[in-house]
Amino acid sequence: MPNGQLCIVLGASGFIGSRLCEVMGAKIPNLKAFGRNPLYPSAFSRCRWIEGDFSDINQVAHAIAGCDTVIHLVNATTPASANLNRVMDLEANVVSTLNLLDVCVSSGVKKIVFISSGGTVYGVPSVVPTPETADNDPITAYGVSKLIIEKYLFLYRHLYGLDYTILRVANPYGPYQTNKKNQGVIAAFLRRAIHGEPIDVWGDGSVVRDYIFIDDVVSAIELAILNGTDKKIFNIGSGRGLSINEIILTLENVLGKKIEINYMPRRNMDVPVSVLDIAQAAEVLKWTPKVEFSQGIQDTFEWVKSSGL
Amino acid sequence: MPNGQLCIVLGASGFIGSRLCEVMGAKIPNLKAFGRNPLYPSAFSRCRWIEGDFSDINQVAHAIAGCDTVIHLVNATTPASANLNRVMDLEANVVSTLNLLDVCVSSGVKKIVFISSGGTVYGVPSVVPTPETADNDPITAYGVSKLIIEKYLFLYRHLYGLDYTILRVANPYGPYQTNKKNQGVIAAFLRRAIHGEPIDVWGDGSVVRDYIFIDDVVSAIELAILNGTDKKIFNIGSGRGLSINEIILTLENVLGKKIEINYMPRRNMDVPVSVLDIAQAAEVLKWTPKVEFSQGIQDTFEWVKSSGL
Repeated sequence: MPNGQLCIVLGASGFIGSRLCEVMGAKIPNLKAFGRNPLYPSAFSRCRWIEGDFSDINQVAHAIAGCDTVIHLVNATTPASANLNRVMDLEANVVSTLNLLDVCVSSGVKKIVFISSGGTVYGVPSVVPTPETADNDPITAYGVSKLIIEKYLFLYRHLYGLDYTILRVANPYGPYQTNKKNQGVIAAFLRRAIHGEPIDVWGDGSVVRDYIFIDDVVSAIELAILNGTDKKIFNIGSGRGLSINEIILTLENVLGKKIEINYMPRRNMDVPVSVLDIAQAAEVLKWTPKVEFSQGIQDTFEWVKSSGL
Repeated sequence: MPNGQLCIVLGASGFIGSRLCEVMGAKIPNLKAFGRNPLYPSAFSRCRWIEGDFSDINQVAHAIAGCDTVIHLVNATTPASANLNRVMDLEANVVSTLNLLDVCVSSGVKKIVFISSGGTVYGVPSVVPTPETADNDPITAYGVSKLIIEKYLFLYRHLYGLDYTILRVANPYGPYQTNKKNQGVIAAFLRRAIHGEPIDVWGDGSVVRDYIFIDDVVSAIELAILNGTDKKIFNIGSGRGLSINEIILTLENVLGKKIEINYMPRRNMDVPVSVLDIAQAAEVLKWTPKVEFSQGIQDTFEWVKSSGL
């Protein structure tokens, strides 16, 4: 962080927020962390923890008072739940974010770092790997909400000079990701496999995603805080695709045992392939992913065992 | 309209709706028109008029029951008012439209024709004339709302098969446009000039827009209802730009008198140039604008005089 600036993480108690606060809290003084009851309170031992609800703008305004930088990690819905009730999704994510932006303007916040969704804002990608300039036609309400917030960030910068950087993060995995709230296949598969339970695969396992280790996401956020260029949107992924079947093979190698699979019908909301082109983040943010997939799975496995969950 | 299909116009009492209902009402039986107290009730003499509020989804649901096609013209805000309260704009336009889309799905509507904004969804255009494939970074909340609705239409077609056609209409002018609600410079200028009053120009009059006569917009909507192609978004404009100063010259010619001008500071929400590329509408919808600008101004002048407003 630039000298003496104050930073707050909103949505801190989630997967990305927990690891981000653990890492950044050890580096910079007075990092504020705002969120609901954390599953892993120890991650915030070096932060100023503020318990609160993102949908209550008074609580948010109180928390961000005096801050220069806001890191917005809040996801009030998941891809699956957002599609079931679009109005609720819009209210919980977009309206709350508009209220946040108004407060940022009135309280003198300089910059927002927003975590968008590299896996959903492009919809069915017109080109793979997908660059930031590709078409945006999401096929989930979750992706539409993320895209809308991106558009409002552009608008608020135009109207009020509120700076921002958007990270379109692919499929993150690693320590602090739980199998609650349907957060990700790796967290779910790993825990079921450890307990010897069968895993559910939607479709034939050929669906390809871009998986990125949490510590690489954290380093991208740290660089995004410092980004002062005209480039505002960056894909953050590994840049390579892995099928569900390939993930299962890696898990079997790391765990040293066979995993039983229940194949389920394909879901309408799943795009067949999503892999991000990460050249712009490399060029502008000087960011590249460091953790190789099998290493990331090994680290995640060790963490899950030690966390006892 | 295809044989026996039933069509409803939402937001019928406004500028485009009034002329659309007058023209279509004379051609097809049982056209439903839904809106708030119309300024020109005679425009709906051949329609089934339904008084109602778009933000009341029960009224909307009752009105569209049995309809195959919905023409969505509702604008709950203007570009100027939307920017002042983004949350209100989002609630009034987007949340209401999401509720409408849910009702369309549950009541078996086949298709929606949505009037979007060719002058605002592109923001500061990356290329002029601007094709439908250009970037979308609106610099007004009004433009963001229109774009969001476009994205939800894409989503609902993907999820539920609800078909749609989007017309990104440039700056429409002509009969039934009033100088209330800041609807457009031509309506405002014309009335003030008729009464010998000075007109207000924001900036130096060099701002360029693409003006399209209302009857050309109506013909585009009629063709959009029938569009069954994979192309879903069409620019509807004249394809040529006119500066405010050129408009004033044309008005002076048609009125046969000099107009007094108050030059005011340029507004942050005005893009300098907006001209639409209309090649796709010509190719796919077989639509082209027919009314030359000076003729359109002449017709509008005659209508304003005869309407006594």
